[in-house]
Amino acid sequence: MKLIIDIGNTVAKLVAFDGDKPVEEVKTSGATLEALPVFLQKYSFERGIVSTVRDLTSEAEAQLASLPFPMLHFTPETPVPITNRYRTPKTLGSDRLAAVVGATTLVPGKDLLIIDAGTCITYEVIDARGNYWGGNIAPGMQMRLTSLHEYTARLPMVSAEGNVPGMGYDTETAIRSGVLRGMKYEIEGYIRSMRHKFPELVVFLTGGDKINFDVRVKNIVMADEYIVPRGLNKILDYNITDNS
Amino acid sequence: MKLIIDIGNTVAKLVAFDGDKPVEEVKTSGATLEALPVFLQKYSFERGIVSTVRDLTSEAEAQLASLPFPMLHFTPETPVPITNRYRTPKTLGSDRLAAVVGATTLVPGKDLLIIDAGTCITYEVIDARGNYWGGNIAPGMQMRLTSLHEYTARLPMVSAEGNVPGMGYDTETAIRSGVLRGMKYEIEGYIRSMRHKFPELVVFLTGGDKINFDVRVKNIVMADEYIVPRGLNKILDYNITDNS
Repeated sequence: MKLIIDIGNTVAKLVAFDGDKPVEEVKTSGATLEALPVFLQKYSFERGIVSTVRDLTSEAEAQLASLPFPMLHFTPETPVPITNRYRTPKTLGSDRLAAVVGATTLVPGKDLLIIDAGTCITYEVIDARGNYWGGNIAPGMQMRLTSLHEYTARLPMVSAEGNVPGMGYDTETAIRSGVLRGMKYEIEGYIRSMRHKFPELVVFLTGGDKINFDVRVKNIVMADEYIVPRGLNKILDYNITDNS
Repeated sequence: MKLIIDIGNTVAKLVAFDGDKPVEEVKTSGATLEALPVFLQKYSFERGIVSTVRDLTSEAEAQLASLPFPMLHFTPETPVPITNRYRTPKTLGSDRLAAVVGATTLVPGKDLLIIDAGTCITYEVIDARGNYWGGNIAPGMQMRLTSLHEYTARLPMVSAEGNVPGMGYDTETAIRSGVLRGMKYEIEGYIRSMRHKFPELVVFLTGGDKINFDVRVKNIVMADEYIVPRGLNKILDYNITDNS
């Protein structure tokens, strides 16, 4: 068994992998990793990998240092099974690179667009030959809702839950529909544009935010919640083979 | 001559109108209205109107109170020359309603979509019979750039100026392209969807953010920087006629 730890901007995910299969996922605080001790008792891990998009707290560092099996810390120097043509690999978010690797393990040899809708929405493109060229970053759903409140004088904090009319009929629905409809058009725009460039494109949708619009159906999009952990698991395997 | 004051989330605009024509616009601080005294010396105003989306500071209140001609304060109770079917007119941003009125003065008797790209991007729809049904609100360009920096641990503050590749090849271009391309797809999505519903739709694009993509050309969009002041000017005229 392998332990995959993916520390994001909002939460950390602990995932137990058996070979290529995610067995269980637990979400916990990225600052404390407080769910880690209980998770360790459930499985007999032999090794693991940790990826983070933020500086580790001393508490998280201590938790990781106490693990009784080898942990690979995923850094820009870690070898990966794709060709990274990003011009500044040292500043590429490790979750973005892991998402690209994860998608290629599920569908190798195809042109891929990976859309990860979490704290941010990231769009990554990797071609059929395994060349990762780069991608884009836009604000995620909660970030859009929060910024409309915090960066204006009078707009309220609106929840993503509730009516989503085509056009808002009051302030609450104007904001909710504005954010969700904008995200829908944005995602559809990327898919349309990329399909034009890569006719055989396969699209992955992942991340915490449920994209509950018709994007999936219309575009035959593959949804998978474990794209990033799958990538980290693959990177772990790749480095064990390399070094053994 | 008429003085139109439009106090937004970021700046206040002072516009001198001669009949239906905007003669000069000056941008100033919404907190202090510091450019107002000099502007007053240039023109002999007979009346004016003020609209604000934020609470006035005592400094701005004092400036407005000292004006030597009658000023109409645009509130949710002010009569307007369209039918406002928004369910909560008291919480409708006065700039949004003014934009709708402004567009109908330029192109009356048509179905209109008004896109105002400023601090927020607002989308408003008014049908050919003059019924305003509502609209949507999404974060503006600067808000998206700022939120990506402030609400994440490691993303930098990126300027809107610079290269905008299709997909970012480093962190800076990933963020800039992510924000600008997302806005482009969002705006194109609204135009496409609304054209489907209203085949004769006329689209207006206004606001401080230059939308320097091909949206305009492809969709025969009308750009006008004075949509909101035009609406306020019209509302001022409408109320003078009513009460005289």
